Amino acid sequence: MSVNERTIRIGIVGLGTVGWGVVHALVRNRAAIRRRCGVDIEIAAAANRRGRLPGSPLPPGRLTRDYRKIVADPSIDIIVELVGGTTVATDIVSTAFEAGKHVVTANKALLAKRWREVFRQAHRAKRALGFESSVMAGVPVIRSLREGLAGNAIQGIFGILNGTSNYILTRMSRDAMEFAEALELARQNGFCEADASLDIDGFDAAQKLSILGSIAFGKWLPPEKVYREGIGNLHEVDIKEARNSFGYVIRPLAILKQTGDAVEARVHPTFIPQRHPLAAIENEFNAALVSADLAGEITLSGRGAGRKPAASGVVSDILTVAQAVAGNGAAALVPPAPERAALKVMPMHRVQSKYYLRFTVVDRPGVLSFISGVLGRRKVSIESCHQRGISGLVPVVMVTHRATEGNLMKALAEIDADRKRVKRKTVAVRIEE
Amino acid sequence: MSVNERTIRIGIVGLGTVGWGVVHALVRNRAAIRRRCGVDIEIAAAANRRGRLPGSPLPPGRLTRDYRKIVADPSIDIIVELVGGTTVATDIVSTAFEAGKHVVTANKALLAKRWREVFRQAHRAKRALGFESSVMAGVPVIRSLREGLAGNAIQGIFGILNGTSNYILTRMSRDAMEFAEALELARQNGFCEADASLDIDGFDAAQKLSILGSIAFGKWLPPEKVYREGIGNLHEVDIKEARNSFGYVIRPLAILKQTGDAVEARVHPTFIPQRHPLAAIENEFNAALVSADLAGEITLSGRGAGRKPAASGVVSDILTVAQAVAGNGAAALVPPAPERAALKVMPMHRVQSKYYLRFTVVDRPGVLSFISGVLGRRKVSIESCHQRGISGLVPVVMVTHRATEGNLMKALAEIDADRKRVKRKTVAVRIEE
Repeated sequence: MSVNERTIRIGIVGLGTVGWGVVHALVRNRAAIRRRCGVDIEIAAAANRRGRLPGSPLPPGRLTRDYRKIVADPSIDIIVELVGGTTVATDIVSTAFEAGKHVVTANKALLAKRWREVFRQAHRAKRALGFESSVMAGVPVIRSLREGLAGNAIQGIFGILNGTSNYILTRMSRDAMEFAEALELARQNGFCEADASLDIDGFDAAQKLSILGSIAFGKWLPPEKVYREGIGNLHEVDIKEARNSFGYVIRPLAILKQTGDAVEARVHPTFIPQRHPLAAIENEFNAALVSADLAGEITLSGRGAGRKPAASGVVSDILTVAQAVAGNGAAALVPPAPERAALKVMPMHRVQSKYYLRFTVVDRPGVLSFISGVLGRRKVSIESCHQRGISGLVPVVMVTHRATEGNLMKALAEIDADRKRVKRKTVAVRIEE
Repeated sequence: MSVNERTIRIGIVGLGTVGWGVVHALVRNRAAIRRRCGVDIEIAAAANRRGRLPGSPLPPGRLTRDYRKIVADPSIDIIVELVGGTTVATDIVSTAFEAGKHVVTANKALLAKRWREVFRQAHRAKRALGFESSVMAGVPVIRSLREGLAGNAIQGIFGILNGTSNYILTRMSRDAMEFAEALELARQNGFCEADASLDIDGFDAAQKLSILGSIAFGKWLPPEKVYREGIGNLHEVDIKEARNSFGYVIRPLAILKQTGDAVEARVHPTFIPQRHPLAAIENEFNAALVSADLAGEITLSGRGAGRKPAASGVVSDILTVAQAVAGNGAAALVPPAPERAALKVMPMHRVQSKYYLRFTVVDRPGVLSFISGVLGRRKVSIESCHQRGISGLVPVVMVTHRATEGNLMKALAEIDADRKRVKRKTVAVRIEE
């Protein structure tokens, strides 16, 4: 047992799925945690909207409806914010720092949207801020970036950060389903938020990418600066075509890349080679591949959501802070003041990428020459091309070399405007090698 | 910049590949580290056997031949031991702790062999001990176990911890090479230690597994208690047969499993399903899959060796300790006193596993019945079996259900003793699902 053993009292605000998991883990494993980490954690108080929690393992009298009481309790060292959202949570976190508490939170929206504000509060109050669970739940990606790769310059991050989207794309790929059917299956399996748009339109992943980018590049990456494209427009035919013709698999990627003096930040369905490390990440699993100048490419993967995994991340933060408090060393956990300037994000039209393209054209001489001519004038060169005749309307699929997004979009607008030869809007999906 | 900024002076002992990488990373990135981590790191002194380092970016006068001078320097906070081995290194680490220094080391042999001694010294001296780089270099597996999964009970760890072995098995699989040829290729590519046996006979992986097990289960796992089986007896025919008949791929696994009140600890070539998370780890790459009660299955992967990746792990330790020292919080990093008792390891004959078996038998009626009869009497049941006729001598390959190692070995001894029917020693390879 550590020389520093002391009981650290914490207050938990919010007792939903994650809060319940944290309470149970801390109560059940209290003795084991004491033995292994040399610190005793006591849940001094917990709050939810009702002020009660049927089946709670907490002693009576510890539950309240009023989180302000908990934040004001001078015997409490750490406030664990698990309310979510950016209204009440903002108040909980700021009053906790004002009261001199350390804060642990799993709140991705709060961190993504109010990064500078929250970090400034922690820095001024000289208190720790733990948020491991906000991005990949129990997979220690925050710790790895903040500490494990601290001596590295981060060159890029490629994440599968939304389990629902990955589940849907896996089903579309493996079971040849269309999007709507796979979405329904995800709902039935309980993988969707009440508002599925948060998952499938990339809002969730964009917030998580904002947090990763803000740590990796040392400046706030506002979530609305992350380019977002949902998975709802994908067709099963493109997934099959890209696999059979070019050996690609589809993944819902969240991408950060240091490019010159700006950072690319984007969330969109992406084709990757079958041998890519992220191709092995299927179903509801999450992963982050971090490319760093010293460590090289490091991949972390696991379940990025769920009661127990989320509780694991929150508990790890509580233990780190509690050990520091017990050792009178929490000052070492105080984050630096946030940079005033936000991260410089590269506008999407300047981003370079390879593309998978599917044109739906009439089967007539000169069509391919027309398409390749327009692409060529816009400096989009073709790496590989397949054409299959199907009764008059022909899909032409191709993979381009790296091209600039702005140029590609102009080329596609010009091609799609030719209604005589091009019968449907051209499908374009970005490729990462 | 942090409120706690202060220059932390470190001393580096050992300037081989890793030491050189650490020196360069700290000198080149000094300003960036100051900005990002709020702590300024100065290499106050460095030692190697010659007392000089051509091309060193250190100011003159910082290099010495005598590490004792560095350890005795009262202005130095952290000693970085990169000598390796267990003779001089033991002295460096113990005198450093005696002198009140924090210690960072990448020395797997020292930690694996003298775990309790080194932890006791750190605990008594109330100093930090960082060793991230000792197992997977820049992949933050130590930090993830010590902190990221601190609230979890670890159920098992499945690692690819030796890059050379993984490279050799990948080449045998992909290029249909025999072992000797693949070993030669590994040598040519610079993947082998001077003594290749350390890699291919599992000594390296056993030491790394000893470190992971000692952290995960809170008691020392002596490296000689790890069952070891090298990859040198594998044949290309078995790799091909297991893939084609049963869909398995071969990986050099290091395995820890909590089973009842004991822990299985073993390093051996292992067949795993093609969809297993570790099947995606090829060539010289390393990985660790940690199975934990809350977080579930988490996989970390990347380059587990090399100058820059190893430097990345060492630098991350230096920064963690330096930040704590600067914030007067290093007490929080003092490890608990080690448990006196060593970990209870399950004897190999009691371990349960599935097996791939290849019998070389004469093509005569009753042979399969003889084999399955002996297996059945030893409670080894067959899941799947293939037989191919090749001119008189016939290979019979099968996959068993889970069986006890002791029973299987007795059955194989009995089968192989029948020289009339069985013409070569039966090949057995363990399977993990």
